[in-house]
Amino acid sequence: MLIPEPLQLVIDELSKLPSIGKKTAQRLALHLLKSDKEMVKSLAKGLIDLKEKIQFCEVCFNISVANICEICTSQKRDRSKICVVEEASDIIAIERTNEFDGLYHVLGGVLSPLSGKGVEDLNIKELLKRFESNEVEEIILALNPDTEGETTSLYMAKLIKPLGLKVSRIARGLPIGGDLEFADDATIGRAVISRIDI
Amino acid sequence: MLIPEPLQLVIDELSKLPSIGKKTAQRLALHLLKSDKEMVKSLAKGLIDLKEKIQFCEVCFNISVANICEICTSQKRDRSKICVVEEASDIIAIERTNEFDGLYHVLGGVLSPLSGKGVEDLNIKELLKRFESNEVEEIILALNPDTEGETTSLYMAKLIKPLGLKVSRIARGLPIGGDLEFADDATIGRAVISRIDI
Repeated sequence: MLIPEPLQLVIDELSKLPSIGKKTAQRLALHLLKSDKEMVKSLAKGLIDLKEKIQFCEVCFNISVANICEICTSQKRDRSKICVVEEASDIIAIERTNEFDGLYHVLGGVLSPLSGKGVEDLNIKELLKRFESNEVEEIILALNPDTEGETTSLYMAKLIKPLGLKVSRIARGLPIGGDLEFADDATIGRAVISRIDI
Repeated sequence: MLIPEPLQLVIDELSKLPSIGKKTAQRLALHLLKSDKEMVKSLAKGLIDLKEKIQFCEVCFNISVANICEICTSQKRDRSKICVVEEASDIIAIERTNEFDGLYHVLGGVLSPLSGKGVEDLNIKELLKRFESNEVEEIILALNPDTEGETTSLYMAKLIKPLGLKVSRIARGLPIGGDLEFADDATIGRAVISRIDI
């Protein structure tokens, strides 16, 4: 037995995490072994609290400490706009910009025949249900600009437009600070097509 | 409050780990949030066990479940040879090769004026004490082949040779499967100097 069992167990658990392989897991576990006991205890307690205190918002599936999240309950948000994202982490990214004051809806992924994700695996039913209040006027699709994201956006637009709602999609184009010379053809092409008057 | 406190706490703790930045920590924490509750609990319990069940061997500073590690207590090991390594993880790496059947000694780092590590910060005193049993005949230095490792090796050799012990250092040269054309000059130079008769 080269590696004591309690250490091997932590290595195995850590290597289940995304982007953490066997070697990284071993290095992390050995680092924790040498770390301050209080720091490791605090991490362990944090993990338990994470699962016990945080849930997903019943309305928009954002992460939340209450049944309904702070954004959904806030009186300051524009309730006529719902921004549809793939994951809760996308909400954090958009909120950081301070450019959107509406509500959100987490789809929980995108349509993907390869990974077996179909319409019923996404929170689409739940989104349609939110339209019943008649408050919603615009749906902003903010899915990732890849093939699956685009396909899902098209599907969502086809589904929602007939309900009389405005459907938009966040812009694709050259990233701020980017260099036209080094941008890929698809991005430049899309930026030309999506040009706006100034 | 964009990120609920229990989540932020886990992100902060995870980002203290080596090679894990703020973004990776956030991705890992969100992954754990979506993971099976049992898996997260098992990781949390593993972390507590890690600190409570594993200690460092009193003789060689290897990781161990008992006061003295399995290698130090084993009757099958050659007690005349001690391989000196920087960290306990190096023992795992050497043991995996099955090429060494002696004992080990973990220095706990190398001499490094930049990070303020001096002679008294390493387990050198404890190594010298192990010579008192008169069982030890050879010290094999297996420190990393960088400037600090080389300096520490030279220091150790100067310290130990006068005691009448044989001191060796693991070989530097072209890595197995490597390509001479792409090896760096220092490695090729050292491989030429350290050539052996065949």
